[in-house]
Amino acid sequence: MLMAVSKIKGLINLNGKIVPLHKATIPVMDHGFLYGDSVYDTFRTFSGYPLQLSEHIHRLFRSADRLQLKSPFGHKQIMAQVFRTISAYWRRFKKEDVYIRVIISRGYGNIGFDLRLCPTPTLIIIVKEIPSLPQKYYETGISAALVPTLRNNPKSLDPNIKSGNYLNNLLAYFDAKKQKAQDAIMQNYKGEITEATTSNIFIVKKGILYTPSLESGLLKGLIRTLLIDTARKNHLKCVEKKITKQELLNADECFLCGSIKCILPVTRCNHKKMGSGKPGPVTRKLMALFPEAVMENIREEYCIDF
Amino acid sequence: MLMAVSKIKGLINLNGKIVPLHKATIPVMDHGFLYGDSVYDTFRTFSGYPLQLSEHIHRLFRSADRLQLKSPFGHKQIMAQVFRTISAYWRRFKKEDVYIRVIISRGYGNIGFDLRLCPTPTLIIIVKEIPSLPQKYYETGISAALVPTLRNNPKSLDPNIKSGNYLNNLLAYFDAKKQKAQDAIMQNYKGEITEATTSNIFIVKKGILYTPSLESGLLKGLIRTLLIDTARKNHLKCVEKKITKQELLNADECFLCGSIKCILPVTRCNHKKMGSGKPGPVTRKLMALFPEAVMENIREEYCIDF
Repeated sequence: MLMAVSKIKGLINLNGKIVPLHKATIPVMDHGFLYGDSVYDTFRTFSGYPLQLSEHIHRLFRSADRLQLKSPFGHKQIMAQVFRTISAYWRRFKKEDVYIRVIISRGYGNIGFDLRLCPTPTLIIIVKEIPSLPQKYYETGISAALVPTLRNNPKSLDPNIKSGNYLNNLLAYFDAKKQKAQDAIMQNYKGEITEATTSNIFIVKKGILYTPSLESGLLKGLIRTLLIDTARKNHLKCVEKKITKQELLNADECFLCGSIKCILPVTRCNHKKMGSGKPGPVTRKLMALFPEAVMENIREEYCIDF
Repeated sequence: MLMAVSKIKGLINLNGKIVPLHKATIPVMDHGFLYGDSVYDTFRTFSGYPLQLSEHIHRLFRSADRLQLKSPFGHKQIMAQVFRTISAYWRRFKKEDVYIRVIISRGYGNIGFDLRLCPTPTLIIIVKEIPSLPQKYYETGISAALVPTLRNNPKSLDPNIKSGNYLNNLLAYFDAKKQKAQDAIMQNYKGEITEATTSNIFIVKKGILYTPSLESGLLKGLIRTLLIDTARKNHLKCVEKKITKQELLNADECFLCGSIKCILPVTRCNHKKMGSGKPGPVTRKLMALFPEAVMENIREEYCIDF
């Protein structure tokens, strides 16, 4: 897992030019570097098709709008560049499924906040191997910790802006490591559960699924939405609401979800078993339903039948 | 002011190698770019001497510690590289006084939070022209706006970590521009005044100076400290305390301070005059005392006499 960057199988598309991952550079004076002034979205392919591609690009543009960041490419142009880069990856590495990160950076310019300093934003598409978590994690679940680092207040920096400002999450991850947990669950300043460092969270109590409502200050994850829909279609009750620390700790089941990790059970929190200490029946049911939900989404998005 | 980056007179030192500002690059996979995972400190020279250099480097290391970021160079090595870069700038551009930004970036590595992914942090020193505000601003003062964007909660991301996560400040600046003001004054979630987007703030009421106490969540600015000391040495009363919105709006005088802008009067807030609407007597007294305070600091720091 911890290999040198030069060994990572990957390509990077810089404004349309594709180069090996370890050779791609940006100027030091790019505000994406100086201020973390960039937006991004991350997704993966299944059977070669990027899942929820259009929705990810829509969200990328929504993040960019919030920062008054104008994309140098339109929606269709970004789609085309994503496919070009995936295709180049296939030719080079012969692997069908990939991780994709699309970034729009403010671009280079003198130090300062005046947007006219940076007239030319940069489009960056990273295509690389999918980082795979050990299979064991999916079978036995991971340990999480409720951490002291609070999720960013939406009035300071809205978690719905997926940006290059990621230290809040990194600090929460440090807290989790200190507590010997594998990931952190973050609260807002009112004590409500929000999300994990790179995932949304669901809990199950008496057979009903609950996930924090967006008002608590969290990313409206696309897999979160897909799972809410999948649960409801399959007659599982799923409620979005404010979730307290006690509700989390007393849950029968818990899992994280995201575009790369999909559904990851959490079976311990703050060193205590959650429910039975094993992935529970509702979690396992959703995990079983997930591949078909993904394929259905792809069939619809790409109008194909397989 | 808004010139192309290639026209900016500047040099960048990358781990000891000095290159023209517009030619300096970092890898896309540097976490400083991907996550804003870097720390920095900014200062300038006076008569060729970097003001408060040692204190800035100390603060840089304190920021780095908070992010578990190990500098590839020690305190003295960074000092040496700062002087080397300033000296190269003198040779190249024949200008004595410069702006300096020292950055330590996490370095390149695969996507993820595990610190072992990025074994080699990068030291970057930007030396360039001092960005000069119009002289008029110092004579008549600027307009500020109390903005809706709240300063980062120290429990989410402490403003005392000077990091590459700067969107909170940028969003506040956008708010100020929307309100046709030149800079933003930010409150914390409890409504207490904290700081401006790149400056500390002072107000004056009935001849007494007040500046927000650190408990409100703000950077402990080095010029802020220098001014508190200078005021007290010159028999001006100066108090650190929680400052409310009303106290700010009812102040007789107000100014911002920072390592680059020094002391900048604020004469309008939320479109209303502050006090007389002109830089007041206490502000002007501190502005008059400032050059000697700087020179005294330099004489002490560098054990020279001039």
